[in-house]
Amino acid sequence: MSDDDATTDGGQPRRGRRGGGRAARQAARAASTSATSPYLVRSMPPMEMLDEAGLRTIEDNAETIMSEIGIAFQETPDALDLWRDAGATIDGDDLVRFPRGLCREIVQANAPTEFVQHGRNPERNVRIGGNTTVFAPNYGSPFVTDLDRGRRYATIEDFENVVKLTYLLPHLHHSGGTVCEPVDIPVNKRHLDMMYAHLRWSDKPCMGSVTAPERAEDSIELARLAFGGDLQDRTVLTSLINASSPLRWDATMLGAATAYAKANQACIMSPFILAGAMSPVTVAGLAAQALAEALTGMAYCQLVRPGAPVIFGTFASSMSMATGAPTFGTPEAGQAIAVMAALARRVGVPFRSGGQFTSSKAPDAQAAYESASTLLPTVLSGVNFVLHAAGWIEGGLALSYEKLIMDADQLGMMEIYAKGVDVTENGQAMEAFRTNPAGQHFLGNAHTLANFESAFYRSTIADNNSYEQWSEEGSLTAAQRANARWKELLASYEAPPIDPAADQAMLDFIARRKAEMPDEIG
Amino acid sequence: MSDDDATTDGGQPRRGRRGGGRAARQAARAASTSATSPYLVRSMPPMEMLDEAGLRTIEDNAETIMSEIGIAFQETPDALDLWRDAGATIDGDDLVRFPRGLCREIVQANAPTEFVQHGRNPERNVRIGGNTTVFAPNYGSPFVTDLDRGRRYATIEDFENVVKLTYLLPHLHHSGGTVCEPVDIPVNKRHLDMMYAHLRWSDKPCMGSVTAPERAEDSIELARLAFGGDLQDRTVLTSLINASSPLRWDATMLGAATAYAKANQACIMSPFILAGAMSPVTVAGLAAQALAEALTGMAYCQLVRPGAPVIFGTFASSMSMATGAPTFGTPEAGQAIAVMAALARRVGVPFRSGGQFTSSKAPDAQAAYESASTLLPTVLSGVNFVLHAAGWIEGGLALSYEKLIMDADQLGMMEIYAKGVDVTENGQAMEAFRTNPAGQHFLGNAHTLANFESAFYRSTIADNNSYEQWSEEGSLTAAQRANARWKELLASYEAPPIDPAADQAMLDFIARRKAEMPDEIG
Repeated sequence: MSDDDATTDGGQPRRGRRGGGRAARQAARAASTSATSPYLVRSMPPMEMLDEAGLRTIEDNAETIMSEIGIAFQETPDALDLWRDAGATIDGDDLVRFPRGLCREIVQANAPTEFVQHGRNPERNVRIGGNTTVFAPNYGSPFVTDLDRGRRYATIEDFENVVKLTYLLPHLHHSGGTVCEPVDIPVNKRHLDMMYAHLRWSDKPCMGSVTAPERAEDSIELARLAFGGDLQDRTVLTSLINASSPLRWDATMLGAATAYAKANQACIMSPFILAGAMSPVTVAGLAAQALAEALTGMAYCQLVRPGAPVIFGTFASSMSMATGAPTFGTPEAGQAIAVMAALARRVGVPFRSGGQFTSSKAPDAQAAYESASTLLPTVLSGVNFVLHAAGWIEGGLALSYEKLIMDADQLGMMEIYAKGVDVTENGQAMEAFRTNPAGQHFLGNAHTLANFESAFYRSTIADNNSYEQWSEEGSLTAAQRANARWKELLASYEAPPIDPAADQAMLDFIARRKAEMPDEIG
Repeated sequence: MSDDDATTDGGQPRRGRRGGGRAARQAARAASTSATSPYLVRSMPPMEMLDEAGLRTIEDNAETIMSEIGIAFQETPDALDLWRDAGATIDGDDLVRFPRGLCREIVQANAPTEFVQHGRNPERNVRIGGNTTVFAPNYGSPFVTDLDRGRRYATIEDFENVVKLTYLLPHLHHSGGTVCEPVDIPVNKRHLDMMYAHLRWSDKPCMGSVTAPERAEDSIELARLAFGGDLQDRTVLTSLINASSPLRWDATMLGAATAYAKANQACIMSPFILAGAMSPVTVAGLAAQALAEALTGMAYCQLVRPGAPVIFGTFASSMSMATGAPTFGTPEAGQAIAVMAALARRVGVPFRSGGQFTSSKAPDAQAAYESASTLLPTVLSGVNFVLHAAGWIEGGLALSYEKLIMDADQLGMMEIYAKGVDVTENGQAMEAFRTNPAGQHFLGNAHTLANFESAFYRSTIADNNSYEQWSEEGSLTAAQRANARWKELLASYEAPPIDPAADQAMLDFIARRKAEMPDEIG
């Protein structure tokens, strides 16, 4: 797609009309003028870990899985009808078998190669797909932890804190979704408070609820109110639809996906794989399965509404051979990310994977090794949407306030990789060589002085001082420095503006919906 | 080169005779039979961060630097004579200007594309160059630190401990050189004790002294004695020759390089660059300079002895804009590694860069983020020789016992990346799909059971247990677990065998050399 196409609104088939106009021009201005980009634009080529023949083999195996083994669409008769009409066959209650090539054809003929997800603030709009990368925070943890209070169940206050911190952290482009589970709110009502927090306390794009179809509808309605009325088919939500791997989509997730797709909101159709349990143990086996699952999920969304924006998702972890526990930051997971990213590029749709994963219980060296060992393959492989990009700890059971800060700092580094190596005349720096006295340092050279400010990524967490100075300042670890940082950030927080009428409309809607339902305890 | 060529002894010109024979067959057997490979063999293609046009621009700029700006060969009249004879011009005391293409031609016509460095134990021989990667530990730190005793000046006991730990850590392929500075030994004699420690307490390949030409000669003589007499031109040492960047080689380093090259021992000719000080601040500027420096250094070794094994080195770090302190694990350094690796491949010589760097003072999250953010680009870019692969902390001022253990664990992961994704029939796992009941987990599948043991990298340091179990076991950080691990390892250490006559010959030589010199305090 050309740069011009890149501003096309979400949800248009790839051969559809140009979108954009005023909002697109605003987004383009924002991208060019703000100190930090609203998302990464990669100019470096993606890293490849498998050659053409290997990728073709996996694609062929995925077609065999779809056509011979089949994928279950559980307890969703409407879905089975759509599949039957599209040419698939149904066996038993729900097992769908797809003629070879059918799902790929449906996706390639209808799904956008990239789309814009709007934020309440148009300067925060993100373009998802192609050569962009968007970072969103941790998702789904029942616990939170910090150095002061330790590990505990998450509350709506924690949820709001994470939304506010994410709003303030420039390298997180997206507000995310269930950044932690506010377990102090009844399970059937917490989606309302979560959506309100995203829409009121941030103006970055966010995700909707997927735990029931009616909660997806509520999410869309709240977004409509926050955006000031008709969404005009704009994509303002990108939500996470996990497969019930192996080879199943369940009714809850399909119901949420249906609601979002009908409303032209984006779905991440995401295999969720602990290799060895939810798939074979090998990367190539996992990849064939994930491709099959993702293709069927994305094709389903296209049957619901041709052109609905979808993201090819993959969550894949390895396993401890000793205990069966999931493990993170392993090379096998890095290989899976790179292979799946290549497969998604060949389909021609945006790809979600990776993040900053760890099974460590503390924001320690294990947490950081494992996180960096996931993030680098994520970015170098060209992943488009990165959930869990900051804050994840303890295999996803908890969000760490300190790790949120430390991880977000690492995300800033990725912008430099994305930009690629500068080989302009200034980048080549030949004038520096020509003007520098032989054998002298370049510190005082005009080229150095002109470029020094912007030359290197500036970490907010790393301590590069001498041992003596570091000792004088209390010998703090990175996690201790991050602890001070998140408190400073929260203290500095100011809510983004919102139209008071829109705010009141959201509050009224939430009050009404809560009154309509008895509390359910999760 | 073919696999057969790959076992060619070091130091042969690329069109020279086949070497190998018995030692080569032994090495091949070792590579195929030992549980852990003696070095990595990469089947994945290297990551590229710059396209052909960008690399050509940098190569052209390097030629401009060599031909118009010039490189100083300081206080080494013999070197100037060699350069004059080779067609270069000398200006002033020592500034050499090289006709465009001269150095590249000399290197490409003479230097081996890869070579074997022998260990005392032939099963530890390493092949350096092409598709191999060799990991060596930290180098050059005056301090050591551990969680029990804190930071202190290193001693010969620390040095021996690091040699012993490196011997025991399977993912460190090479014993390294000055793993820490034994400051309790007089500066003019410590090279003797360091060489003895490597040659007696390990049987992995090692590095020689470079701090004076006569210390290089002593290193070669000790290696000769340890290997039981005549080296028969075998390469048994790979030593680090740093440029005095920008654009200078000093007399000490040139003297050591001359001694090693004459004896057919390998030299890493290594630009040492803190960008902004020892080079322009930009990656492309740094790269042009590093290429110019490395080419002149490697070409010099070929003038001394055509066919002498050389490694194209690059040490490059970024800088804190606030303090001027070196910074590590930054994306700019990662880009520099990838660009230089590509440039070295185009010359056709082995490449040294990267490691696991950090400016953190503690084995904490900063240390791990920065280390992993250096190691991944190092391995993915296809670096052949990785010094500082484990133990580096505090910008290289100290070696951390705990980080040595944690870093070595990370190195194990890199073997998986090197092997690449398995797309054999077993890797594809289609039989698992065909035999697994619909919707069931794969844990009990025959394919899973057959592959589970070897499926995933098994970390020795990561804790993947539940929060509850981790808490019961004392809520230890990764560094605390590593602390226990290095003590266990040292307690388990048993010295590799050595011919008593060779050992006595080394001890006699050391005693004689020490008696010949008064102590010098460094």
